[in-house]
Amino acid sequence: MADHTVKFDVAPEPVSVPTGTLLTEAARLAGVDLMQPCGGQGRCGRCAVHITQGSARRRSTLRLSAEDVEAGFALACQTVVEADVSVTVPPQEKIERRLTTDRTVAEVSVPDGYDPAAQQAIRRVTLNLTPPSMDDQTDDWGRLQSALRQQAGVEQAQLSLDTLRGIGAALRDGEWEVTAVLDTGRWDCPGCPARLIDLKPGHTPGDAPLWGAAIDIGTTTVTLWLVDLLTGELRAQVAEYNGQIARGEDVISRIVYASKGNEARDEMRGLVLGTINELVKEAARRVQADPAAIVKATIAGNSTMIHLLLGLPAGSIRLMPFVTAANHVPTLTAREAGLGIHPEATVDCLPGVASYVGADISAGVLSSGVDDTDQVTLFLDVGTNGETVLGSAEWLVTCACSAGPAFEGAGVVHGMRATRGAIEEVWINGESYEPTFRVIGGVKPRGLCGSGLISLLAELFLTGIIDKSGNVNPALDTPRTREGEHGPEYVIAWADETQTGQDIAITHVDIDNLLRAKAAIYAGFTVLADSVGVPLETVEQVLIGGSFGKYINVEKAVEIGLLPDMPWDRFQFLGNTAVKGAYLALLDRGLRQQIRDIASRMTYIELSADNTFYEAFMSAMFLPHTDITRFPTVEAAMLNKG
Amino acid sequence: MADHTVKFDVAPEPVSVPTGTLLTEAARLAGVDLMQPCGGQGRCGRCAVHITQGSARRRSTLRLSAEDVEAGFALACQTVVEADVSVTVPPQEKIERRLTTDRTVAEVSVPDGYDPAAQQAIRRVTLNLTPPSMDDQTDDWGRLQSALRQQAGVEQAQLSLDTLRGIGAALRDGEWEVTAVLDTGRWDCPGCPARLIDLKPGHTPGDAPLWGAAIDIGTTTVTLWLVDLLTGELRAQVAEYNGQIARGEDVISRIVYASKGNEARDEMRGLVLGTINELVKEAARRVQADPAAIVKATIAGNSTMIHLLLGLPAGSIRLMPFVTAANHVPTLTAREAGLGIHPEATVDCLPGVASYVGADISAGVLSSGVDDTDQVTLFLDVGTNGETVLGSAEWLVTCACSAGPAFEGAGVVHGMRATRGAIEEVWINGESYEPTFRVIGGVKPRGLCGSGLISLLAELFLTGIIDKSGNVNPALDTPRTREGEHGPEYVIAWADETQTGQDIAITHVDIDNLLRAKAAIYAGFTVLADSVGVPLETVEQVLIGGSFGKYINVEKAVEIGLLPDMPWDRFQFLGNTAVKGAYLALLDRGLRQQIRDIASRMTYIELSADNTFYEAFMSAMFLPHTDITRFPTVEAAMLNKG
Repeated sequence: MADHTVKFDVAPEPVSVPTGTLLTEAARLAGVDLMQPCGGQGRCGRCAVHITQGSARRRSTLRLSAEDVEAGFALACQTVVEADVSVTVPPQEKIERRLTTDRTVAEVSVPDGYDPAAQQAIRRVTLNLTPPSMDDQTDDWGRLQSALRQQAGVEQAQLSLDTLRGIGAALRDGEWEVTAVLDTGRWDCPGCPARLIDLKPGHTPGDAPLWGAAIDIGTTTVTLWLVDLLTGELRAQVAEYNGQIARGEDVISRIVYASKGNEARDEMRGLVLGTINELVKEAARRVQADPAAIVKATIAGNSTMIHLLLGLPAGSIRLMPFVTAANHVPTLTAREAGLGIHPEATVDCLPGVASYVGADISAGVLSSGVDDTDQVTLFLDVGTNGETVLGSAEWLVTCACSAGPAFEGAGVVHGMRATRGAIEEVWINGESYEPTFRVIGGVKPRGLCGSGLISLLAELFLTGIIDKSGNVNPALDTPRTREGEHGPEYVIAWADETQTGQDIAITHVDIDNLLRAKAAIYAGFTVLADSVGVPLETVEQVLIGGSFGKYINVEKAVEIGLLPDMPWDRFQFLGNTAVKGAYLALLDRGLRQQIRDIASRMTYIELSADNTFYEAFMSAMFLPHTDITRFPTVEAAMLNKG
Repeated sequence: MADHTVKFDVAPEPVSVPTGTLLTEAARLAGVDLMQPCGGQGRCGRCAVHITQGSARRRSTLRLSAEDVEAGFALACQTVVEADVSVTVPPQEKIERRLTTDRTVAEVSVPDGYDPAAQQAIRRVTLNLTPPSMDDQTDDWGRLQSALRQQAGVEQAQLSLDTLRGIGAALRDGEWEVTAVLDTGRWDCPGCPARLIDLKPGHTPGDAPLWGAAIDIGTTTVTLWLVDLLTGELRAQVAEYNGQIARGEDVISRIVYASKGNEARDEMRGLVLGTINELVKEAARRVQADPAAIVKATIAGNSTMIHLLLGLPAGSIRLMPFVTAANHVPTLTAREAGLGIHPEATVDCLPGVASYVGADISAGVLSSGVDDTDQVTLFLDVGTNGETVLGSAEWLVTCACSAGPAFEGAGVVHGMRATRGAIEEVWINGESYEPTFRVIGGVKPRGLCGSGLISLLAELFLTGIIDKSGNVNPALDTPRTREGEHGPEYVIAWADETQTGQDIAITHVDIDNLLRAKAAIYAGFTVLADSVGVPLETVEQVLIGGSFGKYINVEKAVEIGLLPDMPWDRFQFLGNTAVKGAYLALLDRGLRQQIRDIASRMTYIELSADNTFYEAFMSAMFLPHTDITRFPTVEAAMLNKG
């Protein structure tokens, strides 16, 4: 066999290796230390290199996009030398960034051609009023209405008693020059007069931001985007666990708690308002704005969250025949809703479909474009409730399978939200069983977020640390597996490597929770596809939302049987589609109406009354599934490994 | 001279008297005791008798209507025997009733042809909903909206968050049979959806009352009428002093107090709300209804009262150029307004014209029909503020002269509201200076109400106890005049005749306040007539409103120079025209709109900047006026007496 020269940019000298040598081996010979946390199995993508000259045979391009391959990238552990090559080793941070801002992650950008004058219902106008005199004793409000008519073309305006109390001072403090903020288009009252939200003395500069907030209230995580309504730009993104978690992790236990009485209902309301209002403050602080400068909010969330936010009785949501008080609540003011923004701000809670398919899904369908595509699309919101939509521009069916909060990092001993200190990806060496992981922020780990848990579960399974039922293999020769407080467990990080000073481990109970969660979601797909007679494998695209969705590793999600096994290019991770839908509704009254249309178009399939669902769920309680033929690539990988 | 037989029904025997004998003398001879509190001057009407046979010459028919005379009534003290006559002496109570429900008093009756279906914006409908099932998981609010659409023809409906919180329980408690109360027509938003005010389990019987309240907030007196919106019937009338009196008797002092800060503003708001809410309870108690069953309220009142009720800053009302925060405030709910009725009840504060011509006047013009007559009409609201309107269907001018609360019984030592125990009419014997009086309720007196004060002032003047400047004549030989704590005074009732056990007297200071009040009102007429070049004497009718107006004695009001001297048949006393206007607006959305039109039609004349007014006021500070030729009948009466 011929020898070839391999030249690494970071090595002092080239090395000579025979045909068929792995690039990782060549690197070792050249004294180049390539990261291989997955043990050279081509799963982690951390050994990606750039072939700048010559060519090499890639045995696998897992973790690389077609563009990456086109550009010359290769996974060193999966690439065989067949000619002279020059190789550049990118700085590890650069690889990490590439992996994090995955090719499948949709960036948030202002909608093309956003025109606030045409699309935004909120208007800010400056006015110059003629001061009153003995010859013109028109009342303040009458005078302001005239100015609105003549100078802003607002034919009819209304205002609240509180606003009315303040206009006299604003007019006089501004010496009859004022800036008015109006809501010119309530969606539940298209013919209604414009509503005066705010009147400030003086003229606010035209380029000063006009703040709006898009909010998604997840059962586990609340997300808030702060937006300049004039430019459409997203200016701050914040998220925090829903304060109601202290009173139950899933919607059912929340409803049970809130139904105890008015005090409990008020407490639940207060808890989520507390979370939202802290997020408001944090977001406002980041852009150096006053929370009271936020004049509009749109709110997505599942039906239970919307009910608890508004203090609506939620009891009927959990009892047959599972109906909400309202799928579409009226437009509110922030005062009524209890939000800590401008008290007169318009608050639109987006419309939901049913008790278990809420506004978060209507909003997600809009932002992901499911309602506007020719392709048969599976849309999945990987949150606590596992809502799924199947359809296209022609038809839409939806269901919800109670997945539980495991994938949001809750309900798992060392679970946490996807913030600084969370392990978001794990690789386990198939021989040593030693893990490597990536931590958000590059700091010592505090726990595992959803994507970390999926990653870990897949690695545990593929390396044989757990079997297809999720049981930890007690026979392995490694200190990582042990009998813990909660039964058998695997240690990802030892106490001295963590922020908390405690071992980070995943327990048998955690694994069981994760299995239930993924089984529920997968069973939902099955039932939905069956209901319309569309085989799951004919689905043309899978769109995945959820607050952690944009960090998810599709390969690993398929390996555990959370996602159906199909070509990776059919998957797109969209991040939090609910908050993005709320953002779009915040900007555009037409899109706000479109969400309403989506909500009324979707056919809801009630799973709780569906035996098919239970059977599908039980079949999916294995890794990746009872029926391995549904997961051919996983089967192949296991055979390959075996 | 021939003798004639006079036969009294209450006397055992007829008497024989010569031609020219007064009937009172004949009665004395027959042993019949006729009341003559005014001393036989024909002013009190208490000696009215019925001539059933024969005829007699009436020297004066003061206090009798043309119909009374036609029917045979005569004042015994003013009637001369010229033939044989039979005379019936009515029971004194019957005379009193006749006097009280004076010919000039307009009764409150349901507007002709009142049709709630066409005129009333509030609707009550019974609905039968299909219960939800696994086949129909429509949300509660969606289900209710469908029923409203299909069973009540309500195409679009809105509701508040609070109402939404309650509909689930109402639907389930009523086993999906409910009664809804809706406001189908906000006047400030004709295109707006109907608003759900109330949803009750079960079917309310169609003939059960649907309660509304018409309220007039006077500076001194608050009046509330409780109305069945379905029949239009007035079911309870209550009134009480405005609790704000403790913080100032006139609007200016109230504004000064309320402008001290938010606390003072809130206090003023609380005081009047306290008064209203007590009246609500009292009225509801009378008809055995729950205050929360009142689903609509219309509110009249002067601009300051409306501002203080709503906590609006009123400071600009008293400062040049005298503008209000709003002449027409938006439609509110009772929750916002703070009324102790159904929290979702619609509250319409009626529109005013200017700082000193408020909703009470717009409403009064409507209820008195000034805006709808061919006759040049002077309309006067005898309240604290003395608003006056001159005009007809063609044109309307208006002004306000700060009269002060004297005619409402406030600002006078022994003044009181026109309730049980108030002296409402006084007669003084021209020789003995001894008074006789009529007390509301026929009980011992507690004080004097407005009509009693006018009556007293006229009697004091005509009997020479006070002179034209209002000074008490110190030279009279009567214990009734004396030097009191507040200067010279006249005692109307001795301590042993009163409820309070104290003398009831009118002081020099009281008289001065009354003079100022009547002078301000009369000066207003003058300025208004001058402004449009219409001589006061060409006014074709004088309509008098005010909460005490229906008991006023026009003769005496002319005698003191409060009302212009013109034929009595031009005067009509309409009682509280403001609350009556509120009542009409409560019943009929068309009339509500008409009040709005009236408010925008009226031309307001600002008296505070008018020298003519000051001169007219000074000229009117005498009894009846500096220029006695303006009061020819009073001049004649004085000459006659003199």
